[in-house]
Amino acid sequence: MRLIVQKFGGTSLATPRQRARVVELVREAVETGFHPVVVVSAMGRAGDPYATDTFIQLALQIYPDTAAREMDLLISCGEIISAVLVANALRAAGLDAMALAGGQAGIITDSGFGDARIIRVEPEHLLRHVNEGRIVVVAGFQGVTESGDITTLGRGGSDTTAAALAAALGAERLEIYTDVDGVKTADPDLVPHARTLRVMTYQEIAQMAREGARVVHPRAVDISMRKGVPVVVRSSGGGEGTRIVAPRLSEVRDDRVVTGVTHLPGMAQLTVTPGEDKTAAGMARTVFRALADRDISVDLINVFTDRLSFTVSQGVADRAASVLRGLGYRVEVRKDCAKVSIVGMGMRGRPGVMARVVESLHGAGVQILQTSDSHMTISCLVGQEDLVRAVRTLHDAFDLAEESEERS
Amino acid sequence: MRLIVQKFGGTSLATPRQRARVVELVREAVETGFHPVVVVSAMGRAGDPYATDTFIQLALQIYPDTAAREMDLLISCGEIISAVLVANALRAAGLDAMALAGGQAGIITDSGFGDARIIRVEPEHLLRHVNEGRIVVVAGFQGVTESGDITTLGRGGSDTTAAALAAALGAERLEIYTDVDGVKTADPDLVPHARTLRVMTYQEIAQMAREGARVVHPRAVDISMRKGVPVVVRSSGGGEGTRIVAPRLSEVRDDRVVTGVTHLPGMAQLTVTPGEDKTAAGMARTVFRALADRDISVDLINVFTDRLSFTVSQGVADRAASVLRGLGYRVEVRKDCAKVSIVGMGMRGRPGVMARVVESLHGAGVQILQTSDSHMTISCLVGQEDLVRAVRTLHDAFDLAEESEERS
Repeated sequence: MRLIVQKFGGTSLATPRQRARVVELVREAVETGFHPVVVVSAMGRAGDPYATDTFIQLALQIYPDTAAREMDLLISCGEIISAVLVANALRAAGLDAMALAGGQAGIITDSGFGDARIIRVEPEHLLRHVNEGRIVVVAGFQGVTESGDITTLGRGGSDTTAAALAAALGAERLEIYTDVDGVKTADPDLVPHARTLRVMTYQEIAQMAREGARVVHPRAVDISMRKGVPVVVRSSGGGEGTRIVAPRLSEVRDDRVVTGVTHLPGMAQLTVTPGEDKTAAGMARTVFRALADRDISVDLINVFTDRLSFTVSQGVADRAASVLRGLGYRVEVRKDCAKVSIVGMGMRGRPGVMARVVESLHGAGVQILQTSDSHMTISCLVGQEDLVRAVRTLHDAFDLAEESEERS
Repeated sequence: MRLIVQKFGGTSLATPRQRARVVELVREAVETGFHPVVVVSAMGRAGDPYATDTFIQLALQIYPDTAAREMDLLISCGEIISAVLVANALRAAGLDAMALAGGQAGIITDSGFGDARIIRVEPEHLLRHVNEGRIVVVAGFQGVTESGDITTLGRGGSDTTAAALAAALGAERLEIYTDVDGVKTADPDLVPHARTLRVMTYQEIAQMAREGARVVHPRAVDISMRKGVPVVVRSSGGGEGTRIVAPRLSEVRDDRVVTGVTHLPGMAQLTVTPGEDKTAAGMARTVFRALADRDISVDLINVFTDRLSFTVSQGVADRAASVLRGLGYRVEVRKDCAKVSIVGMGMRGRPGVMARVVESLHGAGVQILQTSDSHMTISCLVGQEDLVRAVRTLHDAFDLAEESEERS
């Protein structure tokens, strides 16, 4: 049996017409010789009665301190409703379908309510139905702990459910349907001529997701990568979409230096120097420990002997600064910053990439506040007002709009 | 620990104000020394987004033939949503509360989807939380099969959940909150001077429920009766309500002949006689087997050597008649009938009760189409147009409006 997993997001399920399109896509899979396992998110967006955010609001209105355990029990209903209605739509179309809650499909998680991790998949129950020829529709985004509590997997959780099932079932392919037609070289709202990538590596998409691209959740990518399940990201409206593969498949052209440009707005830059009664000795250790103890995440860290620069989310910038001032440090805060990153496996070991980044941004009049680079990413912190210009400049500087690059 | 179970119906949960009243009732229980376990139905009525009937409509709109298994998975969300929001309201009021789905609370059922039976309760998980001082709010109306499928218990299922938990936990009392102030001697819409009964037996309320009184589900009564858990039915708005006890407690006065009058509209009377080529030999057996094979329930059965009379639901009357005509019988159908019953343990072995029924209805000009009596019930089939008159006549004939009767 040639199994595939098809995952449909909430925006692909909001209206009867969209659900009809989902039925078509499932039927196409069946007609081309596959047995699909379907994973669904909750239907629609905030305001729709069965959307995740609606449930969250309902609970918070009554009690702002809703326990994470109860919140998960509540919002898990969104995907269950979705799964039953999609199974129903498939049956109405003559396909033998059934619905399973995440726990029933064998998604076992830790008890990290609200952001639980899948610790294993027990697919026997699901497989029994699959072997009897049924198309199982699984409620994504949720699982169950060993002790029977319902959990949810956090943002992007349905992707993770789909990837975990695809891996556990040894699926031939994981298809992620969304409202965009694949992974783009940059956010098309910022770069109108951004292009859909036809192929990219797991590492690249995971990195792009971490750096702000909203396509597939990094956890889902990691799972698929570890088990080597090929992933396709495409629009439920149609189109080829983007194939995500292992680099050794060498479908990705060697001469592609950069795969995409991503951005993360809403950051603040903190620059810390010793205060009057304080030396720089042990400063980095003290600062990062103090922030970690208060659950403040830091990013884009540059450590020097006499100063530290790093970013935090804009919302916690003042709190972070006051913590550090309380320890006797001098702190400069620059708000309204954004991180712009180029991601691509092709830049590894290739000289001159950073030079091109700096030159092109400088040429466009974008001030670089800070940079950081890892083996497949170069990130620049810029002022929010320069964000769009920076993304477009880098997109042009690395010729990402040129289709020819992928015609290998 | 003095455990009680408090069950709140959907009409007690529809608005924030009603939920505030529920919180008050739970708090009162705590303040008078009890540890309450709360059982809730889905919120509101058809049209509310999380009401059972709304979920059913949602599913049927997509696929009229929705599988019972999926339907149960879907509608179980209604009570889960309710349980989480009620737990939240309790926590907002400073009480340590949590929510559990039916399965998590240990309600194990058979796989009779849509109308499952509780086969046992595994209360250990719930009790662990209770022993830690938490008020557990259980999603009523639902359970889980041994193989992990979610089931619902059918109409009145939340009462059944509450009774099963009260029995399994050895609760001191089961409190059923509803939108009426207890069990009435007759439907107050029909009999304005109908009185709230202060006390009655399990057998009487179960029989009244079976004969049309919409108060507590008979299964819930049976469970409480078997374990001897005292039940109180009362309005969440206040009032003493009705206590339901075992007859040996002799709180029910011996001189009370009839406890209440109930009615069931929407019935059709079928009278079957042999056709021209057919004798009456084996007629009853053939007729009832044929109807049973088609899942048609029959009631008020009177068998004679040359004819059969019985009732079916109006909706299936034509189908039933055509089945029997197909077998060669002659069938007369009288639609728009209603069954009126008097219920009371006091009528057992007491002569003259049937005489009083027949005389009073005759005196009121009500034509009796058929009767049946069992040890604690006398039922009369009447025309729908005579229903109100029949109920009022019997209510008066047995002096049910007189309060004094219960002052023992």
